[in-house]
Amino acid sequence: MALSNRTVFFISDRTGITAETLGRSLITQFDNISFTQVALPFIDTAEKAKELVKKINLIFQTGGLRPILFTTIIQDDVRQIIAKSQGFFIDFVHPFIGSLETELQAKSNHSVGLAHSVQDSTEYHKRIEAVNYALANDDGATIYNYGQADVILMGVSRSGKTPTSLYLAIQFGLRVANYPITEDDMGTHKLPPALASYKKKLLGLTIDPIELHNIRELRRPNSPYANLAQCQKEVAFVDSLYEKEEIPFLSSTHRSIEELATKIMSMMGLKRVMQ
Amino acid sequence: MALSNRTVFFISDRTGITAETLGRSLITQFDNISFTQVALPFIDTAEKAKELVKKINLIFQTGGLRPILFTTIIQDDVRQIIAKSQGFFIDFVHPFIGSLETELQAKSNHSVGLAHSVQDSTEYHKRIEAVNYALANDDGATIYNYGQADVILMGVSRSGKTPTSLYLAIQFGLRVANYPITEDDMGTHKLPPALASYKKKLLGLTIDPIELHNIRELRRPNSPYANLAQCQKEVAFVDSLYEKEEIPFLSSTHRSIEELATKIMSMMGLKRVMQ
Repeated sequence: MALSNRTVFFISDRTGITAETLGRSLITQFDNISFTQVALPFIDTAEKAKELVKKINLIFQTGGLRPILFTTIIQDDVRQIIAKSQGFFIDFVHPFIGSLETELQAKSNHSVGLAHSVQDSTEYHKRIEAVNYALANDDGATIYNYGQADVILMGVSRSGKTPTSLYLAIQFGLRVANYPITEDDMGTHKLPPALASYKKKLLGLTIDPIELHNIRELRRPNSPYANLAQCQKEVAFVDSLYEKEEIPFLSSTHRSIEELATKIMSMMGLKRVMQ
Repeated sequence: MALSNRTVFFISDRTGITAETLGRSLITQFDNISFTQVALPFIDTAEKAKELVKKINLIFQTGGLRPILFTTIIQDDVRQIIAKSQGFFIDFVHPFIGSLETELQAKSNHSVGLAHSVQDSTEYHKRIEAVNYALANDDGATIYNYGQADVILMGVSRSGKTPTSLYLAIQFGLRVANYPITEDDMGTHKLPPALASYKKKLLGLTIDPIELHNIRELRRPNSPYANLAQCQKEVAFVDSLYEKEEIPFLSSTHRSIEELATKIMSMMGLKRVMQ
């Protein structure tokens, strides 16, 4: 139940992804309030900042509630202009920079949000190559490059393999292949031959059969593929296979792509640093 | 030049993506210091917290420098245990929750990091569908679904279309198609027929020809495709096409995937909220 509606701005002189990531986790802690969320990246000149201040002040003056401003602004001039607006200014950078300068006994660069610029072209190319790897090895498309994989995801169709593989590639630069378990693999209770030599790289995805049924119905309504009994049969098969072959597994039901990806990295002992 | 090496932990009772995103932007402000970065997600029990404190204290006692702890921990018991370690504790959540409670005149839930759980299955499915859309409409694979696109990226091979499309899909739930401009399209100085009816959705990518040459050399060394003159020719063609047809365009040179994606959203006036 919404008690009031607040405008929330995520403001940055760069992409604003950091402001939005943290700002969103904070406002999800207030579920009685409804928020109108607006991202305002690339506020990187005094002129743009002044324009924005007019907008912020207008919302306050016409609506009565001051907008919440979640900010990651490195440029001092821009920051000072916005801090003086009538919005509720929250700075995600400077309070921490100050204490880090003391702790590290070093001065900060005060340069604009390097986090999302290309500092290291090796890192950049690693992400791009990881995306290409995920695409080339999506859905069992090829099975000859598994030696290069960091992880091979297996699971039934529509259990979340592809989005999770791509997220791991883009965000963490990992090489993730994925292999669909289909009717063809269900003849025996053994790993498909393509996977058998890579057992240590395997991670199984499972899913609640009813959820799977709902997802498949959206895709192919009233098809044998989406049939609940079919979904139950496929999920039961992979679940028993994971157990028999001692393959670590994870349910994608009620998990976001981020949760799946980070859980998988934990389970597989993959060292993680965002690219 | 690295003056010292500090261990940095990104600690969370959930995915830790927020802690890592902000923590990384902060440490990039100190480029004279070298950091060893470790992500520690899912520290969600007192037992795990106590184990981690032993590890933190050991690093301090053996290395002399206390680890920096960037944290987003909602659970009070876990947070209190880690706050008492010998690390330098930085809390990205509670200082802001307190001031937001006052400003919003509401109590927070104190529930664990909802940001990356699946609160809204509509949102979740939107992202998955966007990924499927990007894959189905990657690299000109089909040209019949452009009516559904939020953006259509065009550009020469290896100018960054695919990773950018996928990032926009995964992170923002946008439907992004991409169309490669190849030799076949260079006969006339007109938009390819497949794109001509969707002019308002088009965004062109360009790239420095030398950078393009380097990228293509990694892929197909010494090929006509990677040849510098060929790269120059292709880039000159798309650049003049963008200008002639008044298509907004952006260079992918020295830009991260996040920057490209967020710039594109700004340029196309796409309202942005992370999914």
